[in-house]
Amino acid sequence: MENVKIIEIKKSVFENNDRAADELRGELKTKGVFLLNLMSSPGSGKTTTLIQTINRLKDKIRIAVMEADIDSDVDAIKIKEATGVESIQLHTGGMCHLDAEMTEQGLNNVSMEQADLVILENVGNLVCPAEFDTGAVKNAMILSVPEGHDKPLKYPLMFSICDVVVINKIDVLPYFDFDMEKCKEYIHMRNPKATVIPICAKTGEGVEVFAEWLLNEVSEWKR
Amino acid sequence: MENVKIIEIKKSVFENNDRAADELRGELKTKGVFLLNLMSSPGSGKTTTLIQTINRLKDKIRIAVMEADIDSDVDAIKIKEATGVESIQLHTGGMCHLDAEMTEQGLNNVSMEQADLVILENVGNLVCPAEFDTGAVKNAMILSVPEGHDKPLKYPLMFSICDVVVINKIDVLPYFDFDMEKCKEYIHMRNPKATVIPICAKTGEGVEVFAEWLLNEVSEWKR
Repeated sequence: MENVKIIEIKKSVFENNDRAADELRGELKTKGVFLLNLMSSPGSGKTTTLIQTINRLKDKIRIAVMEADIDSDVDAIKIKEATGVESIQLHTGGMCHLDAEMTEQGLNNVSMEQADLVILENVGNLVCPAEFDTGAVKNAMILSVPEGHDKPLKYPLMFSICDVVVINKIDVLPYFDFDMEKCKEYIHMRNPKATVIPICAKTGEGVEVFAEWLLNEVSEWKR
Repeated sequence: MENVKIIEIKKSVFENNDRAADELRGELKTKGVFLLNLMSSPGSGKTTTLIQTINRLKDKIRIAVMEADIDSDVDAIKIKEATGVESIQLHTGGMCHLDAEMTEQGLNNVSMEQADLVILENVGNLVCPAEFDTGAVKNAMILSVPEGHDKPLKYPLMFSICDVVVINKIDVLPYFDFDMEKCKEYIHMRNPKATVIPICAKTGEGVEVFAEWLLNEVSEWKR
């Protein structure tokens, strides 16, 4: 099994997270690095979606991944083994989210000069990560079919801050009472500008649409 | 559509949550009321499981439900319509968990003298609710098959504090790579004493086992 770098993230001391996030974004712009903050509930398929997406993009742009988890390093290892890109594990030590300063602690351990795109896989949680700007250029979230189409009603902030909502596990649509049109309606109620992309990370269906969205965003950022 | 009482929960001012939780448990013991704290990820099937469980128990014991959500009152209404038991909605106003004092704010709006069992459906989140003792007599959680059997590795605290882990959505086992034996092994790694109960809340399969567990716990508490 591969080894990955594990970073123990410390609590932030900086009080103004919004300012720290803006500063981090400015720094990323200068360095020409696009940071994507990927969020979801536990078990929505963030890691599998990333593997599929990275394998479609890694010949076009240089990618690095930061996997945040309370404990364990299984995700960072999985990403490294399945894609070959640089992948580090961030341990939050029980903390339920990452803010900008914590994200920067991670970025300090990534080879930034060799990356066009850094993806932060945030802690699996629809509540707290939505409250803290990580300094990312764009926010993405994954909602999986088994979770139900009513989630935008229950986790309003998360859906309102995401630029793109990936709806994963569409292969099991026949086995769940999931109304795709209602889901899109609820998402747009929270954020009319959100891009909604249905995919199945397991089979790869639809992943090229998300990969293309990401590629466009990275190109625009680096212009 | 039915109307339910909606309580806007305020932030706690009490600093020592563990003491507040112990005091609340003492009060519940005196009153002969059993409080169950039910936790899970978003979309694991807490509300459906509760409806099925309550309908199996409501002729044997008196039940009331507190539904915590950041926003919306859909769950409390669903419970009331499907079971007829007293059901109130707690709005956390963005807060990601409930502590003992917040739980007590809810309990003050429940007819305690007419209840043997009060069920608190906590905010859908595997991280923060695990860190705060609500004053409940027992903690239960639901892990659903689509989330994957590796969740005890990633959310150690949640699994370590739960007396019972209900594994929901076993009807879709054929469509997911979910290893039940591995899952049980990981759960018992976190908490060797945890009771594991596989169910399908949609069809009702296995729910009687959870209902019986709960009935026994309530009887023991009221002895």
